[in-house]
Amino acid sequence: MKKGRRLLMSHYVDLNSDLGESFGNYTLGMDGEVLNHVTSANVACGWHAGDPLIMDATVRMCKEKGVAVGAHPGYPDLMGFGRRAMAVNPAEAKAYMIYQVGALQAFCDSYGVTLQHMKLHGAFYNTACVTPKLADAVLDGLQAINPNIAAMVLSGSYIAKEAERRGIPVIQEVFADRGYTDEGTLVPRTEPGAFIKDPQEALERVLMMVTEGKVVTNTGNTIDIVADSVCVHGDNPEAIAFTNYIREGLTKAGVIVANFQNRK
Amino acid sequence: MKKGRRLLMSHYVDLNSDLGESFGNYTLGMDGEVLNHVTSANVACGWHAGDPLIMDATVRMCKEKGVAVGAHPGYPDLMGFGRRAMAVNPAEAKAYMIYQVGALQAFCDSYGVTLQHMKLHGAFYNTACVTPKLADAVLDGLQAINPNIAAMVLSGSYIAKEAERRGIPVIQEVFADRGYTDEGTLVPRTEPGAFIKDPQEALERVLMMVTEGKVVTNTGNTIDIVADSVCVHGDNPEAIAFTNYIREGLTKAGVIVANFQNRK
Amino acid sequence: MKKGRRLLMSHYVDLNSDLGESFGNYTLGMDGEVLNHVTSANVACGWHAGDPLIMDATVRMCKEKGVAVGAHPGYPDLMGFGRRAMAVNPAEAKAYMIYQVGALQAFCDSYGVTLQHMKLHGAFYNTACVTPKLADAVLDGLQAINPNIAAMVLSGSYIAKEAERRGIPVIQEVFADRGYTDEGTLVPRTEPGAFIKDPQEALERVLMMVTEGKVVTNTGNTIDIVADSVCVHGDNPEAIAFTNYIREGLTKAGVIVANFQNRK
Amino acid sequence: MKKGRRLLMSHYVDLNSDLGESFGNYTLGMDGEVLNHVTSANVACGWHAGDPLIMDATVRMCKEKGVAVGAHPGYPDLMGFGRRAMAVNPAEAKAYMIYQVGALQAFCDSYGVTLQHMKLHGAFYNTACVTPKLADAVLDGLQAINPNIAAMVLSGSYIAKEAERRGIPVIQEVFADRGYTDEGTLVPRTEPGAFIKDPQEALERVLMMVTEGKVVTNTGNTIDIVADSVCVHGDNPEAIAFTNYIREGLTKAGVIVANFQNRK
Repeated sequence: MKKGRRLLMSHYVDLNSDLGESFGNYTLGMDGEVLNHVTSANVACGWHAGDPLIMDATVRMCKEKGVAVGAHPGYPDLMGFGRRAMAVNPAEAKAYMIYQVGALQAFCDSYGVTLQHMKLHGAFYNTACVTPKLADAVLDGLQAINPNIAAMVLSGSYIAKEAERRGIPVIQEVFADRGYTDEGTLVPRTEPGAFIKDPQEALERVLMMVTEGKVVTNTGNTIDIVADSVCVHGDNPEAIAFTNYIREGLTKAGVIVANFQNRK
Repeated sequence: MKKGRRLLMSHYVDLNSDLGESFGNYTLGMDGEVLNHVTSANVACGWHAGDPLIMDATVRMCKEKGVAVGAHPGYPDLMGFGRRAMAVNPAEAKAYMIYQVGALQAFCDSYGVTLQHMKLHGAFYNTACVTPKLADAVLDGLQAINPNIAAMVLSGSYIAKEAERRGIPVIQEVFADRGYTDEGTLVPRTEPGAFIKDPQEALERVLMMVTEGKVVTNTGNTIDIVADSVCVHGDNPEAIAFTNYIREGLTKAGVIVANFQNRK
Repeated sequence: MKKGRRLLMSHYVDLNSDLGESFGNYTLGMDGEVLNHVTSANVACGWHAGDPLIMDATVRMCKEKGVAVGAHPGYPDLMGFGRRAMAVNPAEAKAYMIYQVGALQAFCDSYGVTLQHMKLHGAFYNTACVTPKLADAVLDGLQAINPNIAAMVLSGSYIAKEAERRGIPVIQEVFADRGYTDEGTLVPRTEPGAFIKDPQEALERVLMMVTEGKVVTNTGNTIDIVADSVCVHGDNPEAIAFTNYIREGLTKAGVIVANFQNRK
Repeated sequence: MKKGRRLLMSHYVDLNSDLGESFGNYTLGMDGEVLNHVTSANVACGWHAGDPLIMDATVRMCKEKGVAVGAHPGYPDLMGFGRRAMAVNPAEAKAYMIYQVGALQAFCDSYGVTLQHMKLHGAFYNTACVTPKLADAVLDGLQAINPNIAAMVLSGSYIAKEAERRGIPVIQEVFADRGYTDEGTLVPRTEPGAFIKDPQEALERVLMMVTEGKVVTNTGNTIDIVADSVCVHGDNPEAIAFTNYIREGLTKAGVIVANFQNRK
């Protein structure tokens, strides 16, 4: 991963998943299982999900399984799981990101693990990836605390371009199970074509994104897309099977599935 | 400050105060004022008090005024200001400390400020300084994330001795406004002799602790005590005046008031 | 106050203020003082501000001073004081309102005090007063738990009309210190004419609203407005003086300042 | 259930279980299933677990299945699920209980459901049932808000006796899966005999408690015990099966399993 340039390496791809989203007495996700299939983990930092014991256990598991760790900051909305839009201003966005990344960084330090990336969660991701003032503030914060932490962001979004422009390492992510518009944004969840549920179709799309840098949109057009990392899920047995299917398919097609710390 | 040995330097003393205890729309303390009088600040980390915007502003102010920054982790009890005892187990104590220190560390990093120390807050301090299993867990965490961060602890307590034994930098703190028992512990707040309210009496006691390493207890005995740092307050104009009186008295007596980053 | 009809009684007006907005160790507002000047209190319910001890003390003070109690539910955003827009859906809005009103109702019950009204707080108020789906959900909830609790709402808003249509008691409120547009909405805070800072000008406007049912807008037009209650503040000595000025001016002009429980 | 007297009715017993302990995106317990087997539900009130949407859904389900609703207030410790001891003082205990009971009462009101009882949760229960100052404060609060709400409490505890003395309706509860000491308290979880895991043994003990008012302790002695309600669980399929076994066994033995609202 070079700083300041996007990572279109046709034979490599990273698989990322959200992890560490349990909280206190509540268990969410099949973290131990999905860690066998992904190469990077986005670890919740205690605001939309996660708590210090969960963060500790998750970083330890990632280390044991050789999965790269990323911080996954969210809005201060545990009740809404960080999925609700909130009118957070740029100074708040920056400070909330710094706080949560710092907290996770400390658990990484305690295990001698390098923090590979930062990926915003839920409504924070949706808004800050495409809103220049928020994106700028988040990148300001990331550069201030550690210019080596990569920004994992929506492929082709404002924040992706701005991070590149600044020379921040960028990981542009695509979604295995989502449809794209002609503008390269995700088809909204309420519209037809939002979800790709068939594993084989999803795999073919992922392979096209990874090896050709292209995706077919919901209107049938083909557009360019950068796929440094593919977002997959591990909430339930079906999601695990889907993820495994994608990974095996990539490997059979000759794509090397690896995070950015394990590349030469 | 040498690692692993207590810092009985008769001509130096640090003055520390809790800062950054505002939250959201709520303002607490006269931080801008007390920063003119103290040499080290214990900055709340968002659990018992403080929030990311406050932490950011407080670290920035400390940098501007040359005051050393410490992390001030508390129990997850904003409603009780971290002052209520909670049955937190060692694993929780360690993880809660790591989380909060990491969060503050990131704000320090963003300003290029070195995190000097970690001082537990309120009920967390009272319990973990004297409870071996909790103290050990907290020190395990501190060593794991950064062995250069000093532990600011109750002078003479279990955690002070254990930190020295491990070679962790230790800052033993005494209280300007509190009475001591023959065992070197603070006289409980509900008992006679708990508080020293007269500034002149407080100054004389502080001078004796700093220059002679001794304190007169509530029974009239004189015992040994290590005074690397003196805890003062900045909640209101009277506290500010008291703090200033102590600082000026120390300086007049030839004691150098300085934090541990500004010593030769 | 008759159910289902707006309360245009030219010789009566209520003065309301937000109270009980302290939290834990944090004190906000001069509640003891402002209670001498207002006739209704909007008591925070622990989400954007307030906690059970504060709620208990506030209801007790209201009872002692003969001030009517209202519940003041806010968004689950203590850090943002309930002032940030959040994408709360109708089911959430209804349940959040029920929860908080119920909590305050119990403190009223414990003092034998009647809960006069419910007024939403901050971003919840701004959004739900004018968004039909949210307004309907809030009114559904209010009717379900107790049809005698009045809805204190933005004068002339959708929720005001809908509450009247349903036969829910309505208290239409106006603001002593804010300018109005030709549409009867408040001039946004960022625009000229948003604030009326001169007490005499504010008093004249309030008198016109209360006795004539009219207000001069920021374009110089005169429009109709219903003023059952006037919102005032008690955050600082200036606000207290302003509030007192308005009350004395109303009384001198022959307007009876009283809440809805003390009218014949 | 008569006020002020314990309810030793040899042919009746209530079965209670904690419900509504999900939170936001987190699901806990098999509420829909366990409601088929119990007669009273202790519904979490949003502090140790539960949120307004969950409370709403739980009360609605209880109504549909004819299960009596109780409020289940806990400490302000979502991260610790209300299981950690906290130094809560009497004024706080009273106010925390009022707040949470009031919140649940409002959901009951919205469904036209009578709130049958209040049962403290976790560490709050363990401490306040046997600590006179806390018990008194909790009972003060319960009487103040609604003297008809029964106190469901540890059988034979201080709070049980004090509630009877005051004339508050009391439901003395026993545990199907726990051992008892000669003092009538539960064998601590860390000691031998703490748990009764065999369903048949548990059923025999429950039958003896319900029909004879006696229990065999961990030393082999037989002591008196009042069993108005038996606490069972619904966290997992084994717990559901255990609960069902107890219920069927009670019914076969001629005991009428019913809550206190469905008795003649």
